[in-house]
Amino acid sequence: MNILLSNDDGVFAKGLSALYYQLSQQHQVTVIAPDRNCSASSNALSIQTPLRVQQMDNGFYAVNGTPSDCVHLGINQLLTRPPELVVSGINHGANLGDDVIYSGTVAAATEGRHMGLPAIAVSLAGRNPTHFCSAAKCVTDIINLLVEHPLPADQILNVNVPDLAHDQIQGIQATRQGKRHQAENMTKAQDPTGKDIYWYGGVGPELDAGKGTDFHAIAHGYCSVTPLSIDMTAYDSLKALSQWIKNI
Amino acid sequence: MNILLSNDDGVFAKGLSALYYQLSQQHQVTVIAPDRNCSASSNALSIQTPLRVQQMDNGFYAVNGTPSDCVHLGINQLLTRPPELVVSGINHGANLGDDVIYSGTVAAATEGRHMGLPAIAVSLAGRNPTHFCSAAKCVTDIINLLVEHPLPADQILNVNVPDLAHDQIQGIQATRQGKRHQAENMTKAQDPTGKDIYWYGGVGPELDAGKGTDFHAIAHGYCSVTPLSIDMTAYDSLKALSQWIKNI
Amino acid sequence: MNILLSNDDGVFAKGLSALYYQLSQQHQVTVIAPDRNCSASSNALSIQTPLRVQQMDNGFYAVNGTPSDCVHLGINQLLTRPPELVVSGINHGANLGDDVIYSGTVAAATEGRHMGLPAIAVSLAGRNPTHFCSAAKCVTDIINLLVEHPLPADQILNVNVPDLAHDQIQGIQATRQGKRHQAENMTKAQDPTGKDIYWYGGVGPELDAGKGTDFHAIAHGYCSVTPLSIDMTAYDSLKALSQWIKNI
Amino acid sequence: MNILLSNDDGVFAKGLSALYYQLSQQHQVTVIAPDRNCSASSNALSIQTPLRVQQMDNGFYAVNGTPSDCVHLGINQLLTRPPELVVSGINHGANLGDDVIYSGTVAAATEGRHMGLPAIAVSLAGRNPTHFCSAAKCVTDIINLLVEHPLPADQILNVNVPDLAHDQIQGIQATRQGKRHQAENMTKAQDPTGKDIYWYGGVGPELDAGKGTDFHAIAHGYCSVTPLSIDMTAYDSLKALSQWIKNI
Repeated sequence: MNILLSNDDGVFAKGLSALYYQLSQQHQVTVIAPDRNCSASSNALSIQTPLRVQQMDNGFYAVNGTPSDCVHLGINQLLTRPPELVVSGINHGANLGDDVIYSGTVAAATEGRHMGLPAIAVSLAGRNPTHFCSAAKCVTDIINLLVEHPLPADQILNVNVPDLAHDQIQGIQATRQGKRHQAENMTKAQDPTGKDIYWYGGVGPELDAGKGTDFHAIAHGYCSVTPLSIDMTAYDSLKALSQWIKNI
Repeated sequence: MNILLSNDDGVFAKGLSALYYQLSQQHQVTVIAPDRNCSASSNALSIQTPLRVQQMDNGFYAVNGTPSDCVHLGINQLLTRPPELVVSGINHGANLGDDVIYSGTVAAATEGRHMGLPAIAVSLAGRNPTHFCSAAKCVTDIINLLVEHPLPADQILNVNVPDLAHDQIQGIQATRQGKRHQAENMTKAQDPTGKDIYWYGGVGPELDAGKGTDFHAIAHGYCSVTPLSIDMTAYDSLKALSQWIKNI
Repeated sequence: MNILLSNDDGVFAKGLSALYYQLSQQHQVTVIAPDRNCSASSNALSIQTPLRVQQMDNGFYAVNGTPSDCVHLGINQLLTRPPELVVSGINHGANLGDDVIYSGTVAAATEGRHMGLPAIAVSLAGRNPTHFCSAAKCVTDIINLLVEHPLPADQILNVNVPDLAHDQIQGIQATRQGKRHQAENMTKAQDPTGKDIYWYGGVGPELDAGKGTDFHAIAHGYCSVTPLSIDMTAYDSLKALSQWIKNI
Repeated sequence: MNILLSNDDGVFAKGLSALYYQLSQQHQVTVIAPDRNCSASSNALSIQTPLRVQQMDNGFYAVNGTPSDCVHLGINQLLTRPPELVVSGINHGANLGDDVIYSGTVAAATEGRHMGLPAIAVSLAGRNPTHFCSAAKCVTDIINLLVEHPLPADQILNVNVPDLAHDQIQGIQATRQGKRHQAENMTKAQDPTGKDIYWYGGVGPELDAGKGTDFHAIAHGYCSVTPLSIDMTAYDSLKALSQWIKNI
């Protein structure tokens, strides 16, 4: 299969290399990734500045933009024929619950979907995770099955893998997004010239991490696979909303 | 009501001023907005560089970050008491269908929701829209009703207003997101030193713009109000997915 | 006189406004300044990304670039006829000794000189200086005399004013650049995710601040005026160098 | 000798690798360079955002900053003992005449000098130059002699090499900076959304390229070595200036 591989940790990230080497055993893989760490870049597009591409010695393409830029530019301009699948990752750290909306890893997959392609985002849970090979194997297995079970045209898969040796992973679970409490407070500090600066706090602890959620799967040693919709309409609210806005 | 107002076109945008002046007739409004145009910044968070704030002569706060940064920083650090509502806009141009996932305007509202607050994103349709006062009035009406009809805790409202005088707007419709065709091809060009650069093409034309969509409402002169869910789980795919991943 | 006024603290800086109001009593002044604080940007040019201009409500032009970009763009594109003088400042803080080479304030003046125009950089000494009106008056006086005593074509004036009321300034001195000790050590810190980051330390204390230097003038309450050459050739070393490189 | 090697074209540039491989035959070389192309960054310092360092697979350090940042950070923080020499290059393209003041390559050397070390900037002339090995050999020869003929404490060497095979280079000349005409006009264009953007034009043609200048040496196939002073005081104007400012 022709695969376009990207990530949000940047073209030098270990998780990207690990996934590349695993996928390229079986597939034709082109890597197009940001030239800098783009964690938390969400679906941002660089529409105000032009994009530039540089090919590294190892053949990977580095782009001065976001994960979404990499996928869009790759499919629209760099690849001579469209890939059959977009894979994003392996992210260094989980993308669970509310993380999803901020994640550049998930965004790269979403962009693939907007360009008409099946797409998978992959993250390895843990603060400084190490078992990238485990995650790479899990993804390979999922890809092989996905061919026979295609997703609906407006959905992607968000895969999170626990940071365990492959034979210690308990299995795979289809999950829904859990929810986090609000992030920890920002840190107010002073730069060396005495001016106020603000840093983000850590992500919040789990608020909804019950059975069936992505949090729950990871906490119990399972690989979590969440189908995500790129249509955000809250259909269950449409009727009530239609009623009360009549009064305007 | 205490309102936190932000946008993605930046602290100098006309749409922001117009909404500020309308809302401040009735409400206590604090403006915290990006110091530069952040269109298409999606839910990006500046987690790698510290944020800085500067208060302008007109009392607005300018932040060296994204719309999501502005709302997060405002609620977590700048405001002495939490606002009761987050409003984002008025965006210069529509945010319809697939635009939603890229929009910094929508993202500011989403961030408000993640911080536990009701939130509305407002956009004025058209390439160089002018009827900001119309849009500001529509929003005011919606806010007044929203108090009595609170949204579920994981939803926001995405409001698009046609670029018409207020008395020419046909009414308000509750809508679902339509869909666009893929964006137009990127433009490959050379910078003045002869190096290749790539610019994004225009947004794609409507693919699903039938009755009930946001596109349809705007095209027929209606104000469009779409409830958006911040939970992206594709619940309708969970069962099928659970089945086939068992084979791994 | 037609004057192009820029700075490096950005288009909202108090020092810029103060100088604008003083100069515009007598002259036709156009302000073109960076949209963000560009302290320590030196002579950097934004050659890789295109520049954009936005006119503020007060008529000032804001550019998404460096001080040098502002002056170059102003003279080459924005102004319908070339200015007769480029003025840069009033910088918030001194530009003395080795500061000169890093200063965006001085760089804006240098760029004016490269574009063929007489140019003056102005800084107000002190950590949080307040006497901008004093500095503005000093500059006005210098400008009025400069007309009769034009500088050589490859030189600019670097003016530093002590942070004193105008009647407490002891006079004006022509000075040479002093020298600083090395900057204080950088600060190694961790960002909130535990990754190493490094901040610059403060500027070093004076090493050569004897009579005749810019440091000495400011320390004794005088306005310091240093002529700077944009030709950096070390002519006094040319002969010796010619000798020993013959051996290669 | 312990050498700190940097550049402004970024850590992946061919000119950097070529010089590294040549210098490391004889010397202990540490490479600390910008993670992105920083051409025309002059002596800019990243004082508003913290610096970060990443070590590449080949042992080179990549910094999210300017050439000056790389040298300052390297000497102040990264190197366990101070280097004996700072070398910057090989720049892809010449740094002649007025280019010097904008060059990040020259700035890296200047920063070394400010940190108390001898320093050399090296550039290979030509639009897409190829003879990096020639230039690397020239630099090696100069370094070997420089040990016996140290420069004054406020000077650096700016070396430009013609793009020729080593045995076709005519010799070495000690030169002064020539001068260019003003840069070509900026290019006004529209981005794909129709908004005005401006690109820099090419560098201007030679204005002063007579015998003795760096331009002249390169044009005649010689390696050009210009001693540059980091003291910019225009001593020859001090007396006249002292006279007329008395009248204020």
